[in-house]
Amino acid sequence: MNTDRLTQQLAFIREIDKLKYIQRKTRLFNSQRHENDAEHSWHLAMMAMVLAEHATTEVDLFKVMKMLLIHDIVEIDAGDTFLYDTTQSHVNTEVELEAAKRIFGLLPEDQMRDFIALWEEFEAGETPEARFAKALDRLEPIMQNASNQGGTWAEYDVPLSRVLEKVQGIRKGSDSLWAYTEDLLRENVENGNLKE
Amino acid sequence: MNTDRLTQQLAFIREIDKLKYIQRKTRLFNSQRHENDAEHSWHLAMMAMVLAEHATTEVDLFKVMKMLLIHDIVEIDAGDTFLYDTTQSHVNTEVELEAAKRIFGLLPEDQMRDFIALWEEFEAGETPEARFAKALDRLEPIMQNASNQGGTWAEYDVPLSRVLEKVQGIRKGSDSLWAYTEDLLRENVENGNLKE
Ligand SMILES: [Ca+2]
Repeated sequence: MNTDRLTQQLAFIREIDKLKYIQRKTRLFNSQRHENDAEHSWHLAMMAMVLAEHATTEVDLFKVMKMLLIHDIVEIDAGDTFLYDTTQSHVNTEVELEAAKRIFGLLPEDQMRDFIALWEEFEAGETPEARFAKALDRLEPIMQNASNQGGTWAEYDVPLSRVLEKVQGIRKGSDSLWAYTEDLLRENVENGNLKE
Repeated sequence: MNTDRLTQQLAFIREIDKLKYIQRKTRLFNSQRHENDAEHSWHLAMMAMVLAEHATTEVDLFKVMKMLLIHDIVEIDAGDTFLYDTTQSHVNTEVELEAAKRIFGLLPEDQMRDFIALWEEFEAGETPEARFAKALDRLEPIMQNASNQGGTWAEYDVPLSRVLEKVQGIRKGSDSLWAYTEDLLRENVENGNLKE
């Protein structure tokens, strides 16, 4: 066994425990409790496992799941970026890239390269796997908000037009999940959870 | 699109949100906060992704990760079984099987069968994938306890002999992780975190 490799790998495993403290704006289903990034990442990987058949283009599910498990790890340093934040129009790409280098840099070099490449592929959102992964990352909070009387839509006064603009990624990843999303949003306008 | 299938799949996805409320006895690294089953499952899948090269027998990593992501879902109904619980000598297999049937039974039948088979393979612990997955499930709380002045060993007065008996699964899954475990346990006896 290569003790140095194992030592580096275990340092990474200890470091990423911090993802459990990164709070998202969204709350658990039917709940007041905020979701943290680690449980969010678990839930998205489960969604991929269950919903893979709905991807528009056939995807390598193993890759989608790995992407989703690691996609938010940079937030340990960079913090959560709230989708409907109006003061920060884009994710802070530079801070996130530094975070990726520091955190994935704890791993042996070959693994560091693989993890950074996977994270960059997710961020770019161009491959079928990244598009489907991003669709799920958009879908989960919609389902959560719908279960929480509007959740962050109500809390931050976000209208339907802005939600539609921000969740187009679902359309790119899956026709059937997009059809479901449109129905769910319409239903939430009708029941008053989301303003027109 | 088959609307019925999607409806069943989304019901499952909503149901498993409850895993985020199942508290483990162990605490996060260097922390007083208890870990929940969803973030635990995420952490184990990450450990598999990083440590796969240490498995004694070569494993299908995709399968190991799927196993780890779903392995605790039955605890939504059955509750967490604490490794060092002296009142309950075995996991309550019957309650867990009922839980598996109810929760995975929310899925379309083909997926239900796949998920139950995967969970049963993990529980049986006989395939290389199940052995490696179980090794990681034993290793994480050891690392957590070591970071928490003995954690549950100290809190529940568990001696080294009993820890060694309970974590033999690591030996079955990985020679190098077992060597690391033995070193870490010895170190924790020396620093007083774990009594002889
Ligand atoms: Ca995020």
